[in-house]
Amino acid sequence: MTPPADAEPAPPPRRRPGGRTARVRAQVHEAVLAELGEHGYDALTMEAVAARAGVHRATVYRRWGDVGGLLADVLDAASDDAWQPPDTGSLERDLAGLNREIQDAMTARPPVMAALIAASFRSEKAERAQRRLWEDRYARCEIVVARAVRRGEIPPDTHARRLLITATAPLYHHLVLLRTPPDPDLPDHAARTAALAATAGAFTTP
Amino acid sequence: MTPPADAEPAPPPRRRPGGRTARVRAQVHEAVLAELGEHGYDALTMEAVAARAGVHRATVYRRWGDVGGLLADVLDAASDDAWQPPDTGSLERDLAGLNREIQDAMTARPPVMAALIAASFRSEKAERAQRRLWEDRYARCEIVVARAVRRGEIPPDTHARRLLITATAPLYHHLVLLRTPPDPDLPDHAARTAALAATAGAFTTP
Repeated sequence: MTPPADAEPAPPPRRRPGGRTARVRAQVHEAVLAELGEHGYDALTMEAVAARAGVHRATVYRRWGDVGGLLADVLDAASDDAWQPPDTGSLERDLAGLNREIQDAMTARPPVMAALIAASFRSEKAERAQRRLWEDRYARCEIVVARAVRRGEIPPDTHARRLLITATAPLYHHLVLLRTPPDPDLPDHAARTAALAATAGAFTTP
Repeated sequence: MTPPADAEPAPPPRRRPGGRTARVRAQVHEAVLAELGEHGYDALTMEAVAARAGVHRATVYRRWGDVGGLLADVLDAASDDAWQPPDTGSLERDLAGLNREIQDAMTARPPVMAALIAASFRSEKAERAQRRLWEDRYARCEIVVARAVRRGEIPPDTHARRLLITATAPLYHHLVLLRTPPDPDLPDHAARTAALAATAGAFTTP
């Protein structure tokens, strides 16, 4: 079977989790994040990453191809975790906790997450990987909505993804696009707004 | 009075609106937008803009300094218009109209607005100008909320900016960050959600 024309290059091999391949990958990822957080995308080079990771340049070129390949692999690896959204027993508190995680990650120093998002405007490979990561995160968050439905907090036919986007979009809009200083009340406020709208039936099919 | 240390460079002179200076500025802006829409930020050079505008390279360098200066001036010029948000007699319809304008602008071909937003991740001058433009647009939209308050649709102490961000953020989140295909229902849906939440008191001070 031939791959479709727009197929992604084969991902780097994932052998035994504790093996040499995995160790090199982890070292390289760490170097990418450190370089990106300290110097930003413009200074991100295969050479700097190889040097910082203590890995042969040739290995980095062979396995990741270019800077976009490095960023895409870092973003893809971010989904290899056991992250789950908060489970506090209330929709509004779950969403508020989620929003606080987003705000904390986006305002962390060095600004690794913000730099990855900015980098996704520079590389198509990174853009696709960023999209996959967001899809993964929003899919995992759908359980927050399912639990609220089970508790009878919101109507059974609530559209989970729309609710989740409404709850989180103001955070990203402020921090990534409007670039306003972080508003400490916004995580709670956006959660309250989305929960109120959900209770009022805003996310059911009209 | 000396300017503060982080002052912007002086804006290009604005002489008689119909004069040579204004004409050159308009030609250059048009060339920037055309180049950006066709080839994106990476191909945007002072030389390409000068050639396309039919203006001396030296003039472009002297008046705009660099590509960031060009982009910033284009973004600043976007506020020099008489744009006003829709006035339909209902909060939800005003917000829906606004969201349709955003979605249309963001999905227009060539993708000038999307390219300007992407460019604001590349140049600090463009970033500051993009922030000023957004501030200008959201400030002009506050009248939508004031009218809804006057009509008794929403509580008098409704926080206009929060409501407007809630109504519009899902559009930007989808189109700029998640980069999902445009959802034709989203403008109306995000408007309805924000209007419902506003009616339920989500944007009043608790």
